[in-house]
Amino acid sequence: MSNIRILAFAGSLRRGSFNKKLVTVAAETARELECEVDLVDLRDFPMPIYDGDYEQSDGQPQTAKDLKARILACDALLVGCPEYNASITAVLKNTIDWVSRPQPGEPSAFKGRPAALLAASMGPVGGLRGLSPVRDIFDQLGVLTVPTQFALGTAQNAFDDDGNLIEPMHRSLVKDVIVELATVTSALRAAR
Amino acid sequence: MSNIRILAFAGSLRRGSFNKKLVTVAAETARELECEVDLVDLRDFPMPIYDGDYEQSDGQPQTAKDLKARILACDALLVGCPEYNASITAVLKNTIDWVSRPQPGEPSAFKGRPAALLAASMGPVGGLRGLSPVRDIFDQLGVLTVPTQFALGTAQNAFDDDGNLIEPMHRSLVKDVIVELATVTSALRAAR
Amino acid sequence: MSNIRILAFAGSLRRGSFNKKLVTVAAETARELECEVDLVDLRDFPMPIYDGDYEQSDGQPQTAKDLKARILACDALLVGCPEYNASITAVLKNTIDWVSRPQPGEPSAFKGRPAALLAASMGPVGGLRGLSPVRDIFDQLGVLTVPTQFALGTAQNAFDDDGNLIEPMHRSLVKDVIVELATVTSALRAAR
Amino acid sequence: MSNIRILAFAGSLRRGSFNKKLVTVAAETARELECEVDLVDLRDFPMPIYDGDYEQSDGQPQTAKDLKARILACDALLVGCPEYNASITAVLKNTIDWVSRPQPGEPSAFKGRPAALLAASMGPVGGLRGLSPVRDIFDQLGVLTVPTQFALGTAQNAFDDDGNLIEPMHRSLVKDVIVELATVTSALRAAR
Repeated sequence: MSNIRILAFAGSLRRGSFNKKLVTVAAETARELECEVDLVDLRDFPMPIYDGDYEQSDGQPQTAKDLKARILACDALLVGCPEYNASITAVLKNTIDWVSRPQPGEPSAFKGRPAALLAASMGPVGGLRGLSPVRDIFDQLGVLTVPTQFALGTAQNAFDDDGNLIEPMHRSLVKDVIVELATVTSALRAAR
Repeated sequence: MSNIRILAFAGSLRRGSFNKKLVTVAAETARELECEVDLVDLRDFPMPIYDGDYEQSDGQPQTAKDLKARILACDALLVGCPEYNASITAVLKNTIDWVSRPQPGEPSAFKGRPAALLAASMGPVGGLRGLSPVRDIFDQLGVLTVPTQFALGTAQNAFDDDGNLIEPMHRSLVKDVIVELATVTSALRAAR
Repeated sequence: MSNIRILAFAGSLRRGSFNKKLVTVAAETARELECEVDLVDLRDFPMPIYDGDYEQSDGQPQTAKDLKARILACDALLVGCPEYNASITAVLKNTIDWVSRPQPGEPSAFKGRPAALLAASMGPVGGLRGLSPVRDIFDQLGVLTVPTQFALGTAQNAFDDDGNLIEPMHRSLVKDVIVELATVTSALRAAR
Repeated sequence: MSNIRILAFAGSLRRGSFNKKLVTVAAETARELECEVDLVDLRDFPMPIYDGDYEQSDGQPQTAKDLKARILACDALLVGCPEYNASITAVLKNTIDWVSRPQPGEPSAFKGRPAALLAASMGPVGGLRGLSPVRDIFDQLGVLTVPTQFALGTAQNAFDDDGNLIEPMHRSLVKDVIVELATVTSALRAAR
């Protein structure tokens, strides 16, 4: 699986986000499996809320162009998906909507790209309900989302002070997601 | 059904939004059925994208407080839901997330309130896939979303120059939604 | 809320079903709130798997007609929804599909009827993912499904030998569901 | 893509099922792309409705064992999914539930297997809402469902007397699904 490049981010702006922590752990796991990881923070890619009039007058924001370029430079996506009100966050939806806007002569940032999903929340269900709309959106965009996912419940107790997952089982479940993502990505890249 | 007050809006910022047109028609239909309608435009309630750090430092934006007050002054919600990438729009999700943030000593803007959903799109499916996540979010918030909904396909051909729906069938389907919303709202209000 | 009649059942055939236990507790709770409850077991309404050819030659099975009559004699539905493979059970879907088949001159068993959903499972998530497709199906059929629901996790430890819920919190969450269902049903009946 | 073996079936029992017609066309398309296709009819694999007590006493039905063996002999799945009441059919859910029941010492029929989904219906939406629960179920079972799908609307007018799709666009959309399924399946097989 060496040389697989993964673009990883969490669908959250908050600095202390549990999903950022989980994606950071998953990125480290991927590097141990000899993947390259470009770990980005959506805080560095601020975009106005999508507005068709804004797009008409100003076009795609530069931050959306920049993030798209980062995605296009990678083979796969790894997304930590917080659950707000049983669904996707506004910042994740907004980012996907802007980055996916078709630009003449440009390839899609999403079509044909494998992806894997993680979630973390303070409740027992681990943010499971935030993953389902992301799958639907990714299906629509032609992303090949791998079925294995990991929703980390009671996330406030799951990390040590260095940001590591305390429970071996949790580390193992993160690894399962990364291995599946890397396997599918590697196979598809070899076939192209 | 007289004296039922409905807060109506579309989950879109674009001035020429088909969902704004459809909600405007539905508002007029509701008025003909002797409901009062407060028709608002989310363009008048700009909010930053939800960010837990922002909330921590600045609290709920004034525009979210204002929209919440407008909702609390009404008995029911009527929402036109555009479909972007097979799901909810960022502006609608962001608005709901901010308005629903619990504030000490304040009632929820959503819990126990009836709602009805409309959608319009240029495709044949009429934006049907954008409604499902809104239902899930509203269920989570305790909104009683009525089952009857209307997804208007090929919306670019559906309105005349005065913004009226051309097809009697479309007008009838809008009316079905409003009648159900008004019936449920009226019954619940009478019982309280 | 007196004199509200609720048709209650679990979407399971297994005799020891946790969802049957949970619906039985909920039925008792409803009776304490002066609702009448008709508690049925789908084992008593066996139906062939839906097949359009069978319907063409033999029509709606007698068991489907019988269950429909029982539903029509009630004001509301209360359904315990097991989760198999992250979705609805075959027996629940099959029962709904047969009972909802339109019959000339007959009213729908579902349209306009309020409903509430419960779930129980041995996992931590409590069968939450089995509820979402039932909501979608009920929306399609015109059922007014109340937003409050209860998904009981670790159900194998939740009941005492007499079938009572051990935890006061669980009993309280069941009661919340029943109160909401009874309130909405009562209000709608008074308005008709 | 040669030598890829696809197990294809429709989630319907009805002999004249539009989904059977669509899967038959898709199977022929796959054969033209040098895939082998095992096209089965669920009518030949009758199973009782899933019941945990039946499973306890009688085990997995022989028809479920037989279908599982046919799936295990293939590399990928192709499923035509009718929409009943905005969701999956009972026969499709029942078949998946029985076939997926874990048997000691046996591999899963589903885990790691690529799949593609088709739908056909007489309405304009083409059965789109029946696909979403199948995706959720397949995700849960570890199936790698490719994002490209095809929902054929107004299916009663789509086929000629020989069962061919009349519109070149429809044939092209079926081919897109098969090509994606074959590409992913082929790549994964080569990597193993």
